[in-house]
Amino acid sequence: MDVREALYTTRAMRRVKPDPVPEEVQLRILDAAIRAPSGGNSQAWRFLIVDDSEQIAEIGALYSDCIDMLWETIYKDQVAEAAAAETAESRQFAKIIKSVTWAQKNFASYPLLLFAFDQFDTTGGSIFPAVWSAMLAARADGVGSSLTSVLLFKNDKTLDVLNVPKDQGWRMACCVPMGYPTGTWGTAGRRPAHEVSYRNTWGTPLGAEVNEPLWP
Amino acid sequence: MDVREALYTTRAMRRVKPDPVPEEVQLRILDAAIRAPSGGNSQAWRFLIVDDSEQIAEIGALYSDCIDMLWETIYKDQVAEAAAAETAESRQFAKIIKSVTWAQKNFASYPLLLFAFDQFDTTGGSIFPAVWSAMLAARADGVGSSLTSVLLFKNDKTLDVLNVPKDQGWRMACCVPMGYPTGTWGTAGRRPAHEVSYRNTWGTPLGAEVNEPLWP
Repeated sequence: MDVREALYTTRAMRRVKPDPVPEEVQLRILDAAIRAPSGGNSQAWRFLIVDDSEQIAEIGALYSDCIDMLWETIYKDQVAEAAAAETAESRQFAKIIKSVTWAQKNFASYPLLLFAFDQFDTTGGSIFPAVWSAMLAARADGVGSSLTSVLLFKNDKTLDVLNVPKDQGWRMACCVPMGYPTGTWGTAGRRPAHEVSYRNTWGTPLGAEVNEPLWP
Repeated sequence: MDVREALYTTRAMRRVKPDPVPEEVQLRILDAAIRAPSGGNSQAWRFLIVDDSEQIAEIGALYSDCIDMLWETIYKDQVAEAAAAETAESRQFAKIIKSVTWAQKNFASYPLLLFAFDQFDTTGGSIFPAVWSAMLAARADGVGSSLTSVLLFKNDKTLDVLNVPKDQGWRMACCVPMGYPTGTWGTAGRRPAHEVSYRNTWGTPLGAEVNEPLWP
Protein backbone atom coordinates (compact mmCIF):
# COMPACT_ATOMS: atom_id res chain seq x y z
CA MET A 1 0.00 0.00 0.00
CA ASP A 2 1.21 3.47 -0.88
CA VAL A 3 2.22 5.52 2.15
CA ARG A 4 -0.14 8.34 1.17
CA GLU A 5 -3.11 5.99 0.95
CA ALA A 6 -2.34 4.89 4.51
CA LEU A 7 -1.86 8.47 5.76
CA TYR A 8 -5.08 9.70 4.13
CA THR A 9 -7.44 6.80 4.83
CA THR A 10 -6.51 5.59 8.31
CA ARG A 11 -9.55 7.14 9.90
CA ALA A 12 -11.07 6.02 13.22
CA MET A 13 -12.63 2.59 12.64
CA ARG A 14 -14.65 1.73 15.73
CA ARG A 15 -17.13 -0.70 14.14
CA VAL A 16 -15.18 -3.89 13.60
CA LYS A 17 -15.96 -7.61 13.37
CA PRO A 18 -15.10 -10.04 16.17
CA ASP A 19 -12.83 -12.04 13.83
CA PRO A 20 -9.40 -12.52 15.41
CA VAL A 21 -6.33 -10.65 14.16
CA PRO A 22 -3.73 -13.35 13.34
CA GLU A 23 -0.47 -13.39 15.26
CA GLU A 24 1.58 -12.63 12.13
CA VAL A 25 -0.43 -9.44 11.64
CA GLN A 26 -0.03 -8.53 15.33
CA LEU A 27 3.74 -8.91 14.98
CA ARG A 28 3.85 -6.73 11.85
CA ILE A 29 1.94 -4.07 13.78
CA LEU A 30 4.35 -4.20 16.73
CA ASP A 31 7.46 -4.34 14.54
CA ALA A 32 6.31 -1.19 12.73
CA ALA A 33 5.57 0.55 16.04
CA ILE A 34 9.08 0.06 17.42
CA ARG A 35 10.68 1.66 14.31
CA ALA A 36 9.24 5.04 15.34
CA PRO A 37 11.43 7.78 16.80
CA SER A 38 11.67 8.55 20.52
CA GLY A 39 13.58 11.23 22.41
CA GLY A 40 17.29 10.35 22.46
CA ASN A 41 16.21 7.04 20.85
CA SER A 42 15.38 5.99 24.41
CA GLN A 43 12.63 3.56 23.31
CA ALA A 44 11.22 3.88 26.82
CA TRP A 45 7.98 2.21 25.77
CA ARG A 46 5.98 -0.92 26.38
CA PHE A 47 3.21 -2.34 24.23
CA LEU A 48 0.54 -4.58 25.67
CA ILE A 49 -1.49 -6.70 23.27
CA VAL A 50 -4.77 -7.88 24.77
CA ASP A 51 -6.65 -10.67 22.98
CA ASP A 52 -8.12 -12.55 25.94
CA SER A 53 -11.89 -12.08 25.79
CA GLU A 54 -12.31 -11.84 29.57
CA GLN A 55 -9.65 -9.16 29.81
CA ILE A 56 -11.26 -7.25 26.94
CA ALA A 57 -14.68 -7.45 28.61
CA GLU A 58 -13.23 -6.10 31.87
CA ILE A 59 -11.60 -3.19 30.02
CA GLY A 60 -14.89 -2.68 28.18
CA ALA A 61 -16.77 -2.13 31.44
CA LEU A 62 -14.25 0.54 32.45
CA TYR A 63 -14.36 2.05 28.96
CA SER A 64 -18.14 2.40 29.16
CA ASP A 65 -17.94 4.26 32.48
CA CYS A 66 -15.17 6.51 31.10
CA ILE A 67 -17.18 7.41 28.01
CA ASP A 68 -20.12 8.42 30.21
CA MET A 69 -17.70 10.62 32.18
CA LEU A 70 -16.29 12.08 28.95
CA TRP A 71 -19.71 13.21 27.70
CA GLU A 72 -20.51 14.72 31.09
CA THR A 73 -17.25 16.67 31.40
CA ILE A 74 -14.84 17.56 28.57
CA TYR A 75 -17.42 17.23 25.79
CA LYS A 76 -20.47 18.46 27.70
CA ASP A 77 -21.03 21.45 25.37
CA GLN A 78 -20.43 19.46 22.19
CA VAL A 79 -22.92 16.78 23.30
CA ALA A 80 -25.59 19.44 23.80
CA GLU A 81 -24.75 21.02 20.44
CA ALA A 82 -24.82 17.63 18.73
CA ALA A 83 -28.35 17.08 20.04
CA ALA A 84 -29.41 20.43 18.57
CA ALA A 85 -27.61 19.59 15.29
CA GLU A 86 -27.66 23.17 14.04
CA THR A 87 -24.19 23.30 12.46
CA ALA A 88 -22.10 21.02 10.25
CA GLU A 89 -19.65 20.63 13.15
CA SER A 90 -22.37 19.55 15.57
CA ARG A 91 -23.76 17.02 13.07
CA GLN A 92 -20.23 15.68 12.63
CA PHE A 93 -19.90 15.35 16.39
CA ALA A 94 -23.24 13.51 16.53
CA LYS A 95 -21.71 10.91 14.19
CA ILE A 96 -18.75 10.51 16.53
CA ILE A 97 -21.11 10.03 19.49
CA LYS A 98 -22.98 7.33 17.55
CA SER A 99 -19.76 5.57 16.64
CA VAL A 100 -18.40 5.77 20.20
CA THR A 101 -21.72 4.52 21.58
CA TRP A 102 -21.36 1.50 19.28
CA ALA A 103 -17.91 0.89 20.77
CA GLN A 104 -19.32 1.30 24.28
CA LYS A 105 -22.00 -1.35 23.67
CA ASN A 106 -19.85 -3.76 21.69
CA PHE A 107 -16.47 -3.37 23.36
CA ALA A 108 -16.37 -6.99 24.52
CA SER A 109 -16.50 -8.14 20.90
CA TYR A 110 -13.24 -6.37 19.93
CA PRO A 111 -10.75 -9.09 19.04
CA LEU A 112 -7.66 -7.07 19.95
CA LEU A 113 -6.57 -4.11 22.05
CA LEU A 114 -3.18 -2.44 21.86
CA PHE A 115 -2.11 -0.46 24.93
CA ALA A 116 0.93 1.80 24.78
CA PHE A 117 2.94 3.04 27.77
CA ASP A 118 5.74 5.54 28.00
CA GLN A 119 8.13 6.38 30.81
CA PHE A 120 9.19 9.85 31.94
CA ASP A 121 7.85 11.31 28.66
CA THR A 122 6.32 14.69 29.36
CA THR A 123 5.13 15.63 25.88
CA GLY A 124 3.81 12.40 24.35
CA GLY A 125 6.32 12.88 21.54
CA SER A 126 8.11 9.65 22.38
CA ILE A 127 5.08 7.35 22.23
CA PHE A 128 2.41 8.66 19.84
CA PRO A 129 4.56 8.34 16.70
CA ALA A 130 4.89 4.64 17.59
CA VAL A 131 1.16 4.31 18.25
CA TRP A 132 0.33 5.97 14.94
CA SER A 133 2.84 3.71 13.15
CA ALA A 134 1.02 0.71 14.65
CA MET A 135 -2.30 2.04 13.33
CA LEU A 136 -0.84 2.70 9.86
CA ALA A 137 0.72 -0.77 9.73
CA ALA A 138 -2.62 -2.24 10.81
CA ARG A 139 -4.30 -0.30 7.98
CA ALA A 140 -1.85 -1.82 5.50
CA ASP A 141 -3.07 -5.25 6.62
CA GLY A 142 -6.74 -4.22 6.42
CA VAL A 143 -7.11 -3.88 10.19
CA GLY A 144 -9.09 -0.90 11.47
CA SER A 145 -8.33 0.89 14.71
CA SER A 146 -9.17 3.91 16.81
CA LEU A 147 -7.09 5.75 19.37
CA THR A 148 -8.48 6.61 22.78
CA SER A 149 -7.00 7.95 25.98
CA VAL A 150 -10.38 7.95 27.74
CA LEU A 151 -9.37 5.12 30.09
CA LEU A 152 -7.19 7.68 31.90
CA PHE A 153 -10.44 8.60 33.70
CA LYS A 154 -10.08 5.20 35.39
CA ASN A 155 -6.32 4.94 35.16
CA ASP A 156 -5.78 3.07 38.43
CA LYS A 157 -8.44 0.44 37.75
CA THR A 158 -7.22 -0.07 34.19
CA LEU A 159 -3.63 -0.55 35.40
CA ASP A 160 -4.96 -3.06 37.94
CA VAL A 161 -6.70 -5.13 35.26
CA LEU A 162 -3.53 -5.11 33.15
CA ASN A 163 -1.26 -5.73 36.16
CA VAL A 164 0.87 -2.66 35.38
CA PRO A 165 3.34 -1.70 38.14
CA LYS A 166 2.68 1.76 39.56
CA ASP A 167 6.12 2.53 40.94
CA GLN A 168 8.29 2.55 37.80
CA GLY A 169 7.13 5.71 36.08
CA TRP A 170 5.13 3.98 33.36
CA ARG A 171 2.25 6.04 32.02
CA MET A 172 -0.65 4.58 30.04
CA ALA A 173 -0.68 6.73 26.89
CA CYS A 174 -3.66 5.17 25.17
CA CYS A 175 -5.68 2.14 24.19
CA VAL A 176 -6.19 1.23 20.52
CA PRO A 177 -9.03 -1.25 19.87
CA MET A 178 -8.43 -3.08 16.59
CA GLY A 179 -10.24 -5.42 14.23
CA TYR A 180 -11.43 -5.96 10.68
CA PRO A 181 -13.84 -3.10 9.85
CA THR A 182 -17.46 -3.52 8.85
CA GLY A 183 -17.32 -0.25 6.87
CA THR A 184 -15.14 1.07 4.09
CA TRP A 185 -11.97 3.12 4.14
CA GLY A 186 -12.07 6.69 2.91
CA THR A 187 -10.13 9.92 3.04
CA ALA A 188 -10.70 11.68 6.32
CA GLY A 189 -12.43 15.04 5.91
CA ARG A 190 -10.59 17.79 7.72
CA ARG A 191 -10.32 21.53 8.02
CA PRO A 192 -7.92 22.40 5.16
CA ALA A 193 -4.22 22.87 5.78
CA HIS A 194 -4.11 26.58 4.95
CA GLU A 195 -6.73 27.32 7.62
CA VAL A 196 -4.59 25.78 10.36
CA SER A 197 -1.12 26.71 9.09
CA TYR A 198 0.99 29.84 9.12
CA ARG A 199 4.26 30.87 7.51
CA ASN A 200 7.21 32.21 9.52
CA THR A 201 5.14 33.88 12.22
CA TRP A 202 1.84 33.03 13.91
CA GLY A 203 -1.08 34.50 11.99
CA THR A 204 0.79 35.05 8.72
CA PRO A 205 -1.02 33.19 5.92
CA LEU A 206 0.66 30.17 4.39
CA GLY A 207 0.55 31.81 0.96
CA ALA A 208 -1.22 28.93 -0.77
CA GLU A 209 -4.49 27.04 -0.40
CA VAL A 210 -5.20 23.32 -0.36
CA ASN A 211 -8.90 23.06 -1.08
CA GLU A 212 -8.91 19.43 -2.20
CA PRO A 213 -6.96 16.50 -0.72
CA LEU A 214 -3.59 16.15 -2.49
CA TRP A 215 -4.09 12.39 -2.63
CA PRO A 216 -5.04 10.40 -4.68
CA MET B 1 6.46 4.55 -1.73
CA ASP B 2 5.19 1.55 0.21
CA VAL B 3 3.85 2.44 3.64
CA ARG B 4 6.18 -0.05 5.35
CA GLU B 5 9.25 1.44 3.67
CA ALA B 6 8.22 4.81 5.10
CA LEU B 7 7.49 3.39 8.56
CA TYR B 8 10.80 1.49 8.69
CA THR B 9 13.19 4.00 7.17
CA THR B 10 12.02 7.39 8.45
CA ARG B 11 14.84 7.70 10.91
CA ALA B 12 16.12 10.98 12.35
CA MET B 13 17.86 12.85 9.52
CA ARG B 14 19.65 15.82 11.05
CA ARG B 15 22.33 16.32 8.41
CA VAL B 16 20.57 17.92 5.47
CA LYS B 17 21.50 20.22 2.58
CA PRO B 18 20.52 23.90 2.51
CA ASP B 19 18.51 23.34 -0.73
CA PRO B 20 15.00 24.73 -0.34
CA VAL B 21 11.98 22.43 -0.01
CA PRO B 22 9.57 23.49 -2.81
CA GLU B 23 6.16 24.84 -1.87
CA GLU B 24 4.34 21.89 -3.49
CA VAL B 25 6.27 19.51 -1.22
CA GLN B 26 5.52 21.68 1.82
CA LEU B 27 1.81 21.52 0.97
CA ARG B 28 1.87 17.72 0.58
CA ILE B 29 3.52 17.51 4.01
CA LEU B 30 0.87 19.73 5.62
CA ASP B 31 -2.03 18.06 3.82
CA ALA B 32 -0.86 14.67 5.11
CA ALA B 33 -0.48 16.04 8.64
CA ILE B 34 -4.07 17.28 8.88
CA ARG B 35 -5.47 13.82 7.92
CA ALA B 36 -4.26 12.44 11.25
CA PRO B 37 -6.67 11.67 14.10
CA SER B 38 -7.25 13.96 17.07
CA GLY B 39 -9.42 13.54 20.17
CA GLY B 40 -13.09 14.03 19.23
CA ASN B 41 -11.74 15.02 15.78
CA SER B 42 -11.16 18.43 17.37
CA GLN B 43 -8.25 19.30 15.05
CA ALA B 44 -7.15 21.81 17.71
CA TRP B 45 -3.78 22.22 16.04
CA ARG B 46 -1.70 24.80 14.24
CA PHE B 47 1.30 24.22 12.01
CA LEU B 48 3.92 26.87 11.48
CA ILE B 49 6.22 26.54 8.49
CA VAL B 50 9.42 28.56 8.85
CA ASP B 51 11.54 29.11 5.74
CA ASP B 52 12.84 32.63 6.38
CA SER B 53 16.58 32.35 6.97
CA GLU B 54 16.69 35.07 9.64
CA GLN B 55 13.89 33.38 11.59
CA ILE B 56 15.67 30.04 11.30
CA ALA B 57 18.94 31.55 12.54
CA GLU B 58 17.16 33.07 15.55
CA ILE B 59 15.58 29.72 16.39
CA GLY B 60 18.99 28.11 15.86
CA ALA B 61 20.57 30.28 18.56
CA LEU B 62 17.86 29.20 21.01
CA TYR B 63 18.22 25.56 19.89
CA SER B 64 21.94 25.65 20.60
CA ASP B 65 21.39 26.92 24.15
CA CYS B 66 18.67 24.31 24.71
CA ILE B 67 20.89 21.45 23.56
CA ASP B 68 23.58 22.57 25.99
CA MET B 69 20.94 22.51 28.73
CA LEU B 70 19.74 19.07 27.62
CA TRP B 71 23.21 17.52 27.94
CA GLU B 72 23.65 19.11 31.37
CA THR B 73 20.31 17.94 32.74
CA ILE B 74 18.11 15.14 31.37
CA TYR B 75 20.93 13.35 29.52
CA LYS B 76 23.76 14.10 31.96
CA ASP B 77 24.40 10.41 32.74
CA GLN B 78 24.14 9.29 29.12
CA VAL B 79 26.62 11.96 28.04
CA ALA B 80 29.14 10.70 30.60
CA GLU B 81 28.53 7.09 29.52
CA ALA B 82 28.87 8.05 25.86
CA ALA B 83 32.29 9.52 26.60
CA ALA B 84 33.35 6.26 28.26
CA ALA B 85 31.87 4.27 25.33
CA GLU B 86 31.88 0.97 27.22
CA THR B 87 28.57 -0.43 25.98
CA ALA B 88 26.75 -0.67 22.64
CA GLU B 89 24.10 1.68 24.01
CA SER B 90 26.63 4.31 25.03
CA ARG B 91 28.33 4.14 21.62
CA GLN B 92 24.91 4.55 20.02
CA PHE B 93 24.28 7.59 22.19
CA ALA B 94 27.68 9.03 21.18
CA LYS B 95 26.45 8.93 17.57
CA ILE B 96 23.31 10.84 18.55
CA ILE B 97 25.44 13.47 20.31
CA LYS B 98 27.57 13.84 17.18
CA SER B 99 24.51 14.20 14.97
CA VAL B 100 22.84 16.69 17.33
CA THR B 101 26.08 18.67 17.57
CA TRP B 102 26.03 18.91 13.77
CA ALA B 103 22.49 20.30 13.98
CA GLN B 104 23.59 22.74 16.69
CA LYS B 105 26.41 24.11 14.54
CA ASN B 106 24.53 24.13 11.24
CA PHE B 107 21.00 24.98 12.33
CA ALA B 108 20.96 28.24 10.36
CA SER B 109 21.43 26.25 7.14
CA TYR B 110 18.21 24.25 7.57
CA PRO B 111 15.90 25.27 4.71
CA LEU B 112 12.67 24.50 6.57
CA LEU B 113 11.27 24.10 10.08
CA LEU B 114 7.86 22.74 10.93
CA PHE B 115 6.46 23.72 14.32
CA ALA B 116 3.34 22.00 15.68
CA PHE B 117 1.06 23.38 18.37
CA ASP B 118 -1.87 21.80 20.17
CA GLN B 119 -4.49 23.29 22.44
CA PHE B 120 -5.78 21.83 25.71
CA ASP B 121 -4.25 18.44 24.79
CA THR B 122 -2.90 16.82 27.92
CA THR B 123 -1.46 13.61 26.45
CA GLY B 124 0.11 14.63 23.14
CA GLY B 125 -2.17 12.09 21.45
CA SER B 126 -3.90 14.78 19.41
CA ILE B 127 -0.78 16.29 17.86
CA PHE B 128 2.02 13.73 17.51
CA PRO B 129 0.17 11.49 15.04
CA ALA B 130 -0.10 14.57 12.78
CA VAL B 131 3.59 15.42 13.30
CA TRP B 132 4.62 11.88 12.45
CA SER B 133 2.36 11.91 9.38
CA ALA B 134 4.16 15.07 8.25
CA MET B 135 7.52 13.35 8.68
CA LEU B 136 6.35 10.22 6.80
CA ALA B 137 4.94 12.34 3.97
CA ALA B 138 8.23 14.25 3.84
CA ARG B 139 10.07 10.92 3.60
CA ALA B 140 7.91 9.94 0.64
CA ASP B 141 9.16 13.09 -1.13
CA GLY B 142 12.78 12.40 -0.17
CA VAL B 143 12.82 15.03 2.58
CA GLY B 144 14.56 14.12 5.82
CA SER B 145 13.46 15.37 9.22
CA SER B 146 14.00 15.01 12.93
CA LEU B 147 11.65 15.64 15.82
CA THR B 148 12.71 17.70 18.80
CA SER B 149 10.90 19.20 21.77
CA VAL B 150 14.11 20.62 23.20
CA LEU B 151 13.02 24.22 22.51
CA LEU B 152 10.61 23.83 25.43
CA PHE B 153 13.65 24.70 27.58
CA LYS B 154 13.29 28.20 26.09
CA ASN B 155 9.58 28.06 25.41
CA ASP B 156 8.85 31.73 26.08
CA LYS B 157 11.63 33.04 23.89
CA THR B 158 10.74 30.65 21.08
CA LEU B 159 7.09 31.73 21.21
CA ASP B 160 8.29 35.36 21.07
CA VAL B 161 10.35 34.74 17.92
CA LEU B 162 7.36 33.02 16.29
CA ASN B 163 4.87 35.62 17.60
CA VAL B 164 2.70 32.94 19.21
CA PRO B 165 -0.03 34.30 21.53
CA LYS B 166 0.36 33.12 25.13
CA ASP B 167 -3.22 33.54 26.32
CA GLN B 168 -5.09 31.08 24.10
CA GLY B 169 -3.93 27.75 25.46
CA TRP B 170 -1.64 26.90 22.55
CA ARG B 171 1.26 24.64 23.47
CA MET B 172 4.36 24.21 21.33
CA ALA B 173 4.58 20.44 20.90
CA CYS B 174 7.76 20.27 18.86
CA CYS B 175 9.98 21.58 16.11
CA VAL B 176 10.82 19.44 13.08
CA PRO B 177 13.81 20.68 11.03
CA MET B 178 13.56 19.38 7.46
CA GLY B 179 15.66 19.21 4.31
CA TYR B 180 17.16 16.92 1.69
CA PRO B 181 19.52 14.54 3.49
CA THR B 182 23.22 14.19 2.84
CA GLY B 183 23.13 10.56 4.00
CA THR B 184 21.15 7.49 3.00
CA TRP B 185 17.89 6.07 4.32
CA GLY B 186 17.98 2.82 6.24
CA THR B 187 15.90 0.73 8.58
CA ALA B 188 16.09 2.07 12.10
CA GLY B 189 17.75 -0.38 14.51
CA ARG B 190 15.66 -0.89 17.59
CA ARG B 191 15.22 -3.13 20.60
CA PRO B 192 13.04 -5.95 19.19
CA ALA B 193 9.28 -5.93 19.63
CA HIS B 194 9.12 -9.00 21.88
CA GLU B 195 11.46 -7.35 24.40
CA VAL B 196 9.15 -4.38 24.84
CA SER B 197 5.76 -6.08 24.42
CA TYR B 198 3.54 -8.18 26.63
CA ARG B 199 0.39 -10.21 26.09
CA ASN B 200 -2.79 -9.69 28.15
CA THR B 201 -1.00 -8.66 31.35
CA TRP B 202 2.17 -6.70 32.08
CA GLY B 203 5.19 -8.99 32.18
CA THR B 204 3.58 -11.89 30.30
CA PRO B 205 5.70 -12.71 27.23
CA LEU B 206 4.26 -11.95 23.81
CA GLY B 207 4.60 -15.62 22.83
CA ALA B 208 6.63 -14.96 19.68
CA GLU B 209 9.92 -13.32 18.77
CA VAL B 210 10.78 -10.82 16.04
CA ASN B 211 14.53 -11.05 15.70
CA GLU B 212 14.77 -9.52 12.23
CA PRO B 213 12.82 -6.55 10.83
CA LEU B 214 9.62 -7.80 9.11
CA TRP B 215 10.28 -5.42 6.23
CA PRO B 216 11.47 -5.60 3.48
